[in-house]
Amino acid sequence: MTTPDQRKQPKTTVDLVVDGATIVTMDPQNRVITHGAMAVDHGGILAIGPRDSILDSYTGKDWLSLDGDIVMPGLINCHTHIPMAVMRGVADDMALGKWLFEYVFPAENSLTLDRFQTGAEISLAEMIASGTTCFADMYYFQHELAHVVARAGVRAVLAASYKDLPSPDFPSADAALEGARRFIMDFHGHELITPALGPHSTYTLASEPLRKTAALAEETGALVLVHASETSGEVKMAMEKHGASPIEVLRRTGLLTPQSVLAHCVKVTQAEMETIAAAGASVAHCPDSNMKLASGIAPVTAMKRAGVRVVIGTDGPVSNNDQDMFAELRSAALVAKAADEDPEALPAMDVLRMATIEAARALHMDSRTGSLEPGKRADFIVVDIHRPHLQPFTNVFSHLAYSARGSDVSFTFVNGRRLYERGEFRTIDWERLEARAKTAWADLKKAIPVPWEKPPATPA
Amino acid sequence: MTTPDQRKQPKTTVDLVVDGATIVTMDPQNRVITHGAMAVDHGGILAIGPRDSILDSYTGKDWLSLDGDIVMPGLINCHTHIPMAVMRGVADDMALGKWLFEYVFPAENSLTLDRFQTGAEISLAEMIASGTTCFADMYYFQHELAHVVARAGVRAVLAASYKDLPSPDFPSADAALEGARRFIMDFHGHELITPALGPHSTYTLASEPLRKTAALAEETGALVLVHASETSGEVKMAMEKHGASPIEVLRRTGLLTPQSVLAHCVKVTQAEMETIAAAGASVAHCPDSNMKLASGIAPVTAMKRAGVRVVIGTDGPVSNNDQDMFAELRSAALVAKAADEDPEALPAMDVLRMATIEAARALHMDSRTGSLEPGKRADFIVVDIHRPHLQPFTNVFSHLAYSARGSDVSFTFVNGRRLYERGEFRTIDWERLEARAKTAWADLKKAIPVPWEKPPATPA
Repeated sequence: MTTPDQRKQPKTTVDLVVDGATIVTMDPQNRVITHGAMAVDHGGILAIGPRDSILDSYTGKDWLSLDGDIVMPGLINCHTHIPMAVMRGVADDMALGKWLFEYVFPAENSLTLDRFQTGAEISLAEMIASGTTCFADMYYFQHELAHVVARAGVRAVLAASYKDLPSPDFPSADAALEGARRFIMDFHGHELITPALGPHSTYTLASEPLRKTAALAEETGALVLVHASETSGEVKMAMEKHGASPIEVLRRTGLLTPQSVLAHCVKVTQAEMETIAAAGASVAHCPDSNMKLASGIAPVTAMKRAGVRVVIGTDGPVSNNDQDMFAELRSAALVAKAADEDPEALPAMDVLRMATIEAARALHMDSRTGSLEPGKRADFIVVDIHRPHLQPFTNVFSHLAYSARGSDVSFTFVNGRRLYERGEFRTIDWERLEARAKTAWADLKKAIPVPWEKPPATPA
Repeated sequence: MTTPDQRKQPKTTVDLVVDGATIVTMDPQNRVITHGAMAVDHGGILAIGPRDSILDSYTGKDWLSLDGDIVMPGLINCHTHIPMAVMRGVADDMALGKWLFEYVFPAENSLTLDRFQTGAEISLAEMIASGTTCFADMYYFQHELAHVVARAGVRAVLAASYKDLPSPDFPSADAALEGARRFIMDFHGHELITPALGPHSTYTLASEPLRKTAALAEETGALVLVHASETSGEVKMAMEKHGASPIEVLRRTGLLTPQSVLAHCVKVTQAEMETIAAAGASVAHCPDSNMKLASGIAPVTAMKRAGVRVVIGTDGPVSNNDQDMFAELRSAALVAKAADEDPEALPAMDVLRMATIEAARALHMDSRTGSLEPGKRADFIVVDIHRPHLQPFTNVFSHLAYSARGSDVSFTFVNGRRLYERGEFRTIDWERLEARAKTAWADLKKAIPVPWEKPPATPA
């Protein structure tokens, strides 16, 4: 009961009140607040709790009234290559060599900066519409793409990827490292963009650039995004090139640290898992990509038992072929059970933590995002529960892990800013973007074989 | 070019013209008609082709103008238990014994007919909204549920499931067989409902009711839906009960015929695959359920090589936990690649055929549905391509198999009748149904443990 005296206390006016939600906090107690409310001000979470107590203390300039819908932290995609959306669907159901040499490399070489940006923006639209508020990306022209990402309003760790061979954006690994240094300086302290380092892998880089990467990471404190032990072929190539496995090469060159996020880790030994855990590095598990390219199934539960922080990534849109983190965390939960022959493996709560607070820890952002707690930035999504596949509304964690899809997201906020509302984008001109996608595809198909495009049917 | 003479020919007026579509026919040539149109009359497909030729000959009382969106056959779900939606999310991440004895059986025993119908209707809404126009279901009270399904306007093969133990609807297998006979007579020749026989499995039924089922199937021509070789535990139980594997028991009792659809077949030997193929029986592959319950991964490509017709099912909403056939066919394509360690395994076209025309063949409905061809019933869906994850629009088969989700379906038609249009149901009162789902859950949780429902947080 509120006493008459308490009623008289003036309410604090905040930028936004979210009201009438089932709040899934992903805080240390995994608290769920039914009939909850949240006060958002200056892009941050000011207060969160049962609606009666929040509405007693706060009033909002803006108000979001919900009918029991889920409010939860935005999902965090820890491994992707977003510009590749411009090549979505061009190369499926084929072996890696054909995929790379007949499709991906010729396509990449044909792309202009504008085309990379078109691809990036398509992925940003997809991520915003499916509830991803933060992602880690390694690909090309990242310094330029950072402006596209910031304009879309999404939080991101971005790293230009480099190999010993020239990339579309830099002629050499050394040039890419210099570019990364400038990128890190230019975006130092940026509210949304965290510049990082993106050595492609141990099978495409010699020891020297790997060591230089480690030195720059140590000097700047930058995160390192790197592919590691994705396939048995990769492990073999690393052995041939360095005389050691990818994990061992990373360790020797100083790249196995708490700043590192290792993508894939499908082919890792028990000893390597313990090495990764001891070093405090994180692993980005990409189940759909690993299945689609027949790389294998990463030993996720074994890595977790060894103490490794495992998070989740979609991988790029040419090897997935979407950026839907709800689909990805569901795949992670399902495929672990099949691989371990254990229905209790990787339960709903685990995959939800991997895609939220654990991901924020891997990206050194847990003081800012990854859970809904006062003091954090307001990165949150609304999941519409009034849909057949989410009814009856029995167990919120089960529904989020096993029944929800990205398309159930009705609102997306990053840093307190409304980016998406029931099908409408606030920071992306979708119609114009779709036209650009069409032009990009018309160009791209001059560079690659398109056997599925038969001559148009003859009119009768 | 149309000559002036041809122009003068009067146009035929039909019930509906679908115009401006990318028509994915799934016909024997897998034809795709860009800028296509389709004339629908009296619930059937009258003509289909390039839009110029169709619009020259037909005009519609109703008109559906599309902007290049995909028009394709509705998807066919070949194994599910739709009323179980009423228990969605109540039992995940647990071993089969606990799942069955602490959750599913007590829940089933607590359900009234009204609750079964509520669950069925939730699934029907989900299927309609995600592009499924036909399904095969085995569960309880099917004679009663048939009216619910027919009212929703969805095509279905329905079979009451029976075991040697009593079921909620029949006290014995003999009573269930008598009920099935009445069901078959009552719905003989029904436009939407195909009554069938549903012996639960070889580990829950003695030889005698299996033989009686075979006799009734032979007498009536009815399809037989049966679980087979889902887990190694099931194979062991069949061996103990019958001295033979499930497939061998089905063969001996006369249940391995072209009328049979065997659900799962995760644990089948090479010899058994050849036996199934020789008998002309079909297999309904349920990849998500098999992963979630850790049953294993069915040898789909090996079965197909052996000549078995393999189709796709979601299984019930307590072991999946959704009825989205787009998600399911994507899982089928991905998990086959992981299991076979072959990126070329089960390509996009294969899973699309498994979920459409092959499924129609398994259900003996290919003269009526499963592809878009003149003379067939108008069971079709529209997939909205103007969404970020379906752009650029490069390869329609890849996009349908690897990027599309059930939520991309914008229209669903069965038998020429419009069941769904951009979020709105035409045959289901969704608001009323959601209220019924809430009441059903309030009742159900009195019958089962709900450890995740902690006491509500104390107001501050």
